[in-house]
Amino acid sequence: MGTHFPMTRPINDTLLRALLRQPTDTTPVWIMRQAGRYLPEYNQTRARAGSFLALCRNPNLATEVTLQPLARFPLDAAILFSDILVLPDAMGLGLYFVEGEGPKFERPLREEWEIRDLSAPDPDNHLRYVLDAVAQIRRALDNQVPLIGFSGSPFTLACYMIEGEASRDFRWVKSMLYGRPDLLHRILEVNTQAVTRYLRAQIESGAQAIMLFDTWGGILSSPAYREFSLAYMQRVLQELPREWDGHIVPRIVFTKGGGLWLEAIADCGCDAVGVDWTVELDSAKQRIGHRVALQGNLDPGVLLSNPDTVVREVARTLAAFGPGHGHVFNLGHGITQWTPPENVAALVSAVHRESRRYHNPG
Amino acid sequence: MGTHFPMTRPINDTLLRALLRQPTDTTPVWIMRQAGRYLPEYNQTRARAGSFLALCRNPNLATEVTLQPLARFPLDAAILFSDILVLPDAMGLGLYFVEGEGPKFERPLREEWEIRDLSAPDPDNHLRYVLDAVAQIRRALDNQVPLIGFSGSPFTLACYMIEGEASRDFRWVKSMLYGRPDLLHRILEVNTQAVTRYLRAQIESGAQAIMLFDTWGGILSSPAYREFSLAYMQRVLQELPREWDGHIVPRIVFTKGGGLWLEAIADCGCDAVGVDWTVELDSAKQRIGHRVALQGNLDPGVLLSNPDTVVREVARTLAAFGPGHGHVFNLGHGITQWTPPENVAALVSAVHRESRRYHNPG
Repeated sequence: MGTHFPMTRPINDTLLRALLRQPTDTTPVWIMRQAGRYLPEYNQTRARAGSFLALCRNPNLATEVTLQPLARFPLDAAILFSDILVLPDAMGLGLYFVEGEGPKFERPLREEWEIRDLSAPDPDNHLRYVLDAVAQIRRALDNQVPLIGFSGSPFTLACYMIEGEASRDFRWVKSMLYGRPDLLHRILEVNTQAVTRYLRAQIESGAQAIMLFDTWGGILSSPAYREFSLAYMQRVLQELPREWDGHIVPRIVFTKGGGLWLEAIADCGCDAVGVDWTVELDSAKQRIGHRVALQGNLDPGVLLSNPDTVVREVARTLAAFGPGHGHVFNLGHGITQWTPPENVAALVSAVHRESRRYHNPG
Repeated sequence: MGTHFPMTRPINDTLLRALLRQPTDTTPVWIMRQAGRYLPEYNQTRARAGSFLALCRNPNLATEVTLQPLARFPLDAAILFSDILVLPDAMGLGLYFVEGEGPKFERPLREEWEIRDLSAPDPDNHLRYVLDAVAQIRRALDNQVPLIGFSGSPFTLACYMIEGEASRDFRWVKSMLYGRPDLLHRILEVNTQAVTRYLRAQIESGAQAIMLFDTWGGILSSPAYREFSLAYMQRVLQELPREWDGHIVPRIVFTKGGGLWLEAIADCGCDAVGVDWTVELDSAKQRIGHRVALQGNLDPGVLLSNPDTVVREVARTLAAFGPGHGHVFNLGHGITQWTPPENVAALVSAVHRESRRYHNPG
């Protein structure tokens, strides 16, 4: 059952059009982690919530922070404020955060019986707060810009579930992958079902595009990436509804460090491929731009400099993609907490201003 | 002035031949960080030394640990036991180690005056202990296998010198790169001179091949990689002697995460390009194998499994390179401390056994 919204497209639909490689007047722009710690108003709301997790679990406050960057900058999309790890948390792993150390799980998956016992949660039940946030954000947006829903990829979630925290060497994941691949496949089976249900529920609650964050696919060898990450993302996308309420729901897949595998990613059933800043957009466009849209790829480090440099690097990124449709401007990874908000303002206005020339060659 | 060794080639010269794409009967193999914490005898010597740094600074003990893996496994090369950070330490930055946290510098480069004051050390003076170790290891090897010398790349050293420690987001490096590129170029100029002098001194002391470790080049955008990392490695290689004592001294360049830039790396003046495990050797060979040798690229995670899996993955790696010369077998990154030594034994013997078929097609 879905919350039924009017079938109207958002007034600003450049993101949805660009993801489907349809003509637009400008290149749409949004920013990974655009609602985040670089914004003082975000830090205030987070302080009011008490913790990051409390913020994620409160639909009113999640809605508030989702809208904050849109009030400051003329961004072309909102993205649900949440965290990819709320899904494994709903599977019973016990998510918690230690200040300065990032997310951890109380019960990482190490024993065979723990893996056998794992099952996909019912999002209507265990992730109600996310779906409520999606519906509430969608209402609050009042069809101004589209809302993006998201999930971690089955493999990326498995990395956190097995390691129990962010890892440098992925010791336990690699041990399992090479030593007990059957156990890793079992986790990925469950995660695939969980991610599919979760994204379907987000779509039914009002998400107008969805994105798979494959943050850790890039730690794999090429054959292992195909077997343990890409194959499962492909299955998620096969199972998701292509349309909802009469509109196509575009899908973005982003594997950080996946630049060598763009052709394979473009074949996985997505509409757009996210690329990090190590990839050159002109070469990426040559390789896969006739099949899918591209999203990216400014180095978030550029935003640590100054507005002039930001404008110059934005222009360089737009020029690398060049004339034509099918580019969604974004960073190559999440924005960092040390970013001065005026650099974000410079970025967004530069994208809109400088991109016109590439869309109206006449 | 160099310590003069007889002009004899090592009895086992397969590494040197493979680096120059000359015929060999088997594929040579060595392992990044082969003298390290996965070996109980290494841990004993380190305990005797008192600390990792004391071990680096004691030529007798550095020689001892360099030889340890060769006593266990029929490896085709020795590599100087040292750390890339002893060079910035010799520049006055104050290297120290915190157990479980990795290397740190007491005085990271943040202020303009610190950067202006930086200068390249005289290795004969400030890095005497490394050169003594090189000469002593070379004598102890008694021409059985060649000795590899090494340095961090100018950019990779700069990352540690600016951040003051290993970093996840490279906040300060990126701020400088985009905000004050002149300062980063100044550091890289000094580092280039320092690395060149250091490697030249290693060659004069007995190193028969050299390797540049560009561990962090892969965090850069494609144009930034060329400007801030590759260009400076190229200058180091231009300045180094091509031959010593009548023998070519082959050069290996390894940029972790540099798989998208192999063509450019192959043009930088190296004889061999190191590749990490995200790269497929067959495609790398197709792209640059007619110009340079390839070194790599088994996922170090494979060594966390079991001998059967190791043998299977070694065979797959050798098959990916296929028939022909110019492959040096290695991991795609350093061996981890959790590796069971019997898996290393399985790797080395599998490389020698399984590679014969690719070298003797007759």
